[in-house]
Amino acid sequence: MPLTGRNFIGSTRSSRGAKVFRAVNPSLNKEIEPAFHEAVPDEIDRAMKLSEAAFVEYRGRLPGQRAAFLRGIASEIERLGDELVERAVSETALPAARITGERGRTNGQLRMFADLVEEGSWVDARIDHGDANRKPAPKPDIRRALTAIGPVVVFGASNFPLAFSVVGGDTASALAAGCSVVIKAHPSHPGTSELVMGAMLQAAKSNSMPDGVVSLLHGVDPEVSLALVSHALAKAVGFTGSHRAGRALFDLAAARAEPIPVYAEMGSINPVFVLPRAVKESGVQIAEGLTNSVTLGVGQFCTKPGVVVCLDDEATRRFVEEVLRRMAAVPVGTMLNPRIAKAYADGRKQFGGVHAASPGLPTQAVPTVFTATGEQFLSNRHLREELFGPETVVVTAKSPGQFEEIASCLDGQLTATIHAAGGELAEYRLLVEILRRKAGRLIFNGYPTGVEVCSAMHHGGPYPATTDSRSTSVGTAAIERFARPVCYQDCPAEMLPAELLEGNPMSIWRLIDGQWSQ
Amino acid sequence: MPLTGRNFIGSTRSSRGAKVFRAVNPSLNKEIEPAFHEAVPDEIDRAMKLSEAAFVEYRGRLPGQRAAFLRGIASEIERLGDELVERAVSETALPAARITGERGRTNGQLRMFADLVEEGSWVDARIDHGDANRKPAPKPDIRRALTAIGPVVVFGASNFPLAFSVVGGDTASALAAGCSVVIKAHPSHPGTSELVMGAMLQAAKSNSMPDGVVSLLHGVDPEVSLALVSHALAKAVGFTGSHRAGRALFDLAAARAEPIPVYAEMGSINPVFVLPRAVKESGVQIAEGLTNSVTLGVGQFCTKPGVVVCLDDEATRRFVEEVLRRMAAVPVGTMLNPRIAKAYADGRKQFGGVHAASPGLPTQAVPTVFTATGEQFLSNRHLREELFGPETVVVTAKSPGQFEEIASCLDGQLTATIHAAGGELAEYRLLVEILRRKAGRLIFNGYPTGVEVCSAMHHGGPYPATTDSRSTSVGTAAIERFARPVCYQDCPAEMLPAELLEGNPMSIWRLIDGQWSQ
Repeated sequence: MPLTGRNFIGSTRSSRGAKVFRAVNPSLNKEIEPAFHEAVPDEIDRAMKLSEAAFVEYRGRLPGQRAAFLRGIASEIERLGDELVERAVSETALPAARITGERGRTNGQLRMFADLVEEGSWVDARIDHGDANRKPAPKPDIRRALTAIGPVVVFGASNFPLAFSVVGGDTASALAAGCSVVIKAHPSHPGTSELVMGAMLQAAKSNSMPDGVVSLLHGVDPEVSLALVSHALAKAVGFTGSHRAGRALFDLAAARAEPIPVYAEMGSINPVFVLPRAVKESGVQIAEGLTNSVTLGVGQFCTKPGVVVCLDDEATRRFVEEVLRRMAAVPVGTMLNPRIAKAYADGRKQFGGVHAASPGLPTQAVPTVFTATGEQFLSNRHLREELFGPETVVVTAKSPGQFEEIASCLDGQLTATIHAAGGELAEYRLLVEILRRKAGRLIFNGYPTGVEVCSAMHHGGPYPATTDSRSTSVGTAAIERFARPVCYQDCPAEMLPAELLEGNPMSIWRLIDGQWSQ
Repeated sequence: MPLTGRNFIGSTRSSRGAKVFRAVNPSLNKEIEPAFHEAVPDEIDRAMKLSEAAFVEYRGRLPGQRAAFLRGIASEIERLGDELVERAVSETALPAARITGERGRTNGQLRMFADLVEEGSWVDARIDHGDANRKPAPKPDIRRALTAIGPVVVFGASNFPLAFSVVGGDTASALAAGCSVVIKAHPSHPGTSELVMGAMLQAAKSNSMPDGVVSLLHGVDPEVSLALVSHALAKAVGFTGSHRAGRALFDLAAARAEPIPVYAEMGSINPVFVLPRAVKESGVQIAEGLTNSVTLGVGQFCTKPGVVVCLDDEATRRFVEEVLRRMAAVPVGTMLNPRIAKAYADGRKQFGGVHAASPGLPTQAVPTVFTATGEQFLSNRHLREELFGPETVVVTAKSPGQFEEIASCLDGQLTATIHAAGGELAEYRLLVEILRRKAGRLIFNGYPTGVEVCSAMHHGGPYPATTDSRSTSVGTAAIERFARPVCYQDCPAEMLPAELLEGNPMSIWRLIDGQWSQ
């Protein structure tokens, strides 16, 4: 079916607005058809109202029904076949193999949340039985479990057109929790977004889900985003993107008459500390790994290592030469869109007055290594800010003590990495301690890109990596963002949710009178 | 030891400021000695810096050490004996039996968190083992557990001088999580605060805790509170009190360069719906229970039922008469302080131009029942706002359908209560559904006052009941507010926290490769 360029208010297509935009094929730096209609205030309001109505029904669906819906979405995405891959490639310049891999991850996430919801223990059910004979007052029967928070607004990210976009981790976890979702498509890949929305609608229909359980709105104008986050019916926001946009949404949500949580993952510089013996023993290998990690996906990952810290010694000089040599051999890459490519070009100038060859198209990016002393890094705040693209800053510290100083000056991070030779780590306990305060994930002898999707993953971190350091946007714990506890006191069985009934009909793990059991 | 009226920066007494205030004995409406020194900016800054230094040490203490510290605090509070009870009575006008009971609850909470930390499973440990042979990429070893968030600022509440004050639920759960705490004493009971602080310092000393694990600052001026929440080293805030103050702290925290979570419990009107057959069958008994709940502690509970909804019929007319008769028989009570008593008197006027007898002292409050039709309640926003004190609004709805309309118009609540006769609830499923969206705790055939402290308790609720509907300030789950996950990828055993080691040396519940085990 050809793309329509319209918004989806549930299953209803709508294009009331006169303002349109087109995707850009970054490989050609040319617009591609069709035109997409920006949502107007009336469409935003209708989508939110329908979402609220759908939520009331959807949250009552059995876990097995929600799981079937999630699995159905994955199957429908697979059924889109090459059409989806081709459109995504043309809108992002990401290679087909990457899009195919990302599709696998997206569907894997959907099925992971389906399993989680079907298993059911995520609701953190707790029961404390009453005691009518307790003195001085009888003890009531108290039960609590997590329940869906309400309609969620999700913002698609540009750099993961599938896995962090229309039905990426945010939407999948919100739907799993029992929330309806209104999605703001990223204007960088509107066609990919429409295709995925079509798959979701098909799965919603096949699984008899209420109309409006998902909606999709387009917009380049920030007003569309702001109207969504301001809407009284929105109860939470999922976002992955720039610090500027994430903070704007957070500020708006906090200033509402009823503030709502904004889970904004805003990236970081993901520092890598390479300890002196590791440089000496494995410098070449680490240089190779780092170059791959920095330039993977043209450096467009929120976990790209943006700073590498080494000790200023002879081994490091050789290591830096090796990194420079390898980075110089990486071909110019095409970025996701002209805006991101321009920000990268501007950032390169700001970082160090680079005079390297200019790229051909304005969407292309030249892989770049900057070098700085510890002092320069400590005194130049720009070097500690994320630059999205295939670059990194290699910092040579004058002493191991300066490692700690550098770690201490960092903002909150999604990840922090340490490369250490055998036995070397013990000398750097304080460094590890400092990084533990700074980051959501500590990586040893590895690279931050490539986030494993599993129960133990935490993809989050202290501000400004995210707006809520307690939350993750990857892994099963992501579901907790879209739920809140409800407690029942002396509640008759007829009004209890199934997960809190005596006899445990759902066979889930529960904390009963202080003991976990299944 | 006589009270000093000074601030405590860790164990160091400080009184640099010239501004002093005194507690008021509300029973006499007279100031009592000594003078307390308001903290000045330098003292606030020193307390936060010492708290940060103490945190770095304290978070590394073994769970058993933290548990011993918490239990030590409880013992020291008990050792204060009558001196604490007498001072608390003189500062709050609450009866000695209530203070003694509250002391028991406070110490019970401390010991509950000690048990929780010692048991250890609260850290939600998860391990996904690696697989070097996985294709296309090896699977890393991923482990995660919760860790303390950093220095926490806690605001003592006026209405629970022990259980929600200096070492109430917020401080106990923050200390249990491994956070250091800087406490802003409530100016309504500074002497009680100093006594409890002394007990904490004694326990800290006996248990060799780092100096600054707790600090206590005084202040009537909002500037003290604002400076604490603005301080860059503060990582979270616990607050119980008025909507105006809670929202101000929330707004300030959200506007920081690094926003931090504010867990503000700001009260609610705790609606009670008495279904028609329940009124008919148990009207007298419910009138008695409601009167007790409304006037308990002179109506100074955040769970006081502020609105009672019934159907407009003959049985309700008799029920309302019974409530009025019983409420008229409740003696005038003395409120916590002149400010609260004045707000109550002003609110009474605003609610309905009451002409009942005036109280004797300006700190006294006359128990009051207001009546309103469903229409009046729906059209008068004031009636839907909390009035702290011994009053309630009885609303007579014209139809069962109006019950739903009334429930829908309510703001977020800590609790919602339904009284139903046998079999009656089934006719009100929609009402229950609406209330589930509105409240943190649903109570059946009971009363909202008297919050059970246990694992399944949820004392929270949608805004404006709290600023974070996912959090509770009562029960073991309160600890989660002050922790965030940290994830370890391919981490050598020497750098892993004990809760994530192979072999499970702490014998805690863990999610290993998707399966819970101990």
